[in-house]
Amino acid sequence: MSGWLVVAGLGPGAEDLVTPEVAAALAEASDVVGYIPYVARVAPRAGLRLHPSDNRVELDRARAALEIAAAGRRVVVVSSGDPGVFAMASALFEALEIAPEFQGLEIRILPGITAMLAAAARAGAPLGHDFCAINLSDNLKPFEVVETRLRHAARGDFAMGFYNPRSRSRPHQFARVLEILREECEPGRLVIFARAVSTPEEAIGVVTLAEATPEMADMRTVVLVGNSATRRVGRWVYTPRSVAP
Amino acid sequence: MSGWLVVAGLGPGAEDLVTPEVAAALAEASDVVGYIPYVARVAPRAGLRLHPSDNRVELDRARAALEIAAAGRRVVVVSSGDPGVFAMASALFEALEIAPEFQGLEIRILPGITAMLAAAARAGAPLGHDFCAINLSDNLKPFEVVETRLRHAARGDFAMGFYNPRSRSRPHQFARVLEILREECEPGRLVIFARAVSTPEEAIGVVTLAEATPEMADMRTVVLVGNSATRRVGRWVYTPRSVAP
Repeated sequence: MSGWLVVAGLGPGAEDLVTPEVAAALAEASDVVGYIPYVARVAPRAGLRLHPSDNRVELDRARAALEIAAAGRRVVVVSSGDPGVFAMASALFEALEIAPEFQGLEIRILPGITAMLAAAARAGAPLGHDFCAINLSDNLKPFEVVETRLRHAARGDFAMGFYNPRSRSRPHQFARVLEILREECEPGRLVIFARAVSTPEEAIGVVTLAEATPEMADMRTVVLVGNSATRRVGRWVYTPRSVAP
Repeated sequence: MSGWLVVAGLGPGAEDLVTPEVAAALAEASDVVGYIPYVARVAPRAGLRLHPSDNRVELDRARAALEIAAAGRRVVVVSSGDPGVFAMASALFEALEIAPEFQGLEIRILPGITAMLAAAARAGAPLGHDFCAINLSDNLKPFEVVETRLRHAARGDFAMGFYNPRSRSRPHQFARVLEILREECEPGRLVIFARAVSTPEEAIGVVTLAEATPEMADMRTVVLVGNSATRRVGRWVYTPRSVAP
């Protein structure tokens, strides 16, 4: 069996944030599998089969990718950002657990620049000390888990990065997230709304927690929250490396 | 003034994990500034001035980089991994806060593949749900802060990534970290020791928390700890995307 399966991170959007490792895997691929807008980022070429699929079918997509690779083809499953951060790598292993007959396949996970870190770089260094990454969507977990984690992150004085802060199907949840943060953090806490980082639609906004409103986030936004020491210097936001005793 | 300053992430070690954006900045640079082993990763060329410096002088290094850029030169400060994750970006803004006369400089932070995510990719998808990144070093913070954050991370059932778990000057601390984790988590919790990821010395080990010993980590190791649902599938470790209600 000469087929293989790669789960590759395309980074947040810009071509020059795709690692050479991922570019090389795509150049060798016979098949590219993924969510429609991510597959659209791969340049078509003769002999390359594209398999775009809709959102929220991650497990089916992973299973299909395993089957294509098992048939001897060279499959790249494309994720935005990093495949291990709220993306396709976890779904792939879930599918592999359900279908252990594919465990002999050659599988590789190739890291990518995740949105949270690309957004942090644009803003300065807001995640310059200990931080948490939290997926705010309750598609796959009860919202109580989100709330518990938010409170622990705030009480531990972690900086935070939020993925999937808001969607059409969950318009009210991010308002609740801001309420929880206001209960746990001071009003001057810095909040960064980073939309579509590294694409032509990029927009970065910095406000205080008191000023933050739910409408500042949409499906393409990553939200970063500083820790209690995060501050502005000129047009930048950064979190100091040290914590006073 | 035509000088500029870039803080660039070189990724964890492999050349094919350096983004094209960072490679382009290095190709345009007149000066490269950084910790000795990171500067050593930049290919020398005629006209390129290398400024290697020792560890623990981050603030002096940042100040020097600002001065060189202000003199009209094109400076790249190199970090391992991502410059915003326990690396040089935060030190740069600290230096800029102390010396606001440099705030007019053109500054850019270029993200890179951080060790935690490269390690996760090698192991599977252990950070496939909400996670925390914690710097275990107490060089710049009291160890009590580390302990508080560890307990919050565990009680929030976050997966965790630890940077700087152990050094010659702090041989006993990581033993204490394991003790705290044993108080907070079940003995079967999966722990990944990822050493020198993406280099020829790479070594990945997976053990349970009960089996973990301090000697499994050294200065070049990133340690990943799963959440309560993290499990093995074949030779891989992954954290499911969903949390049961």
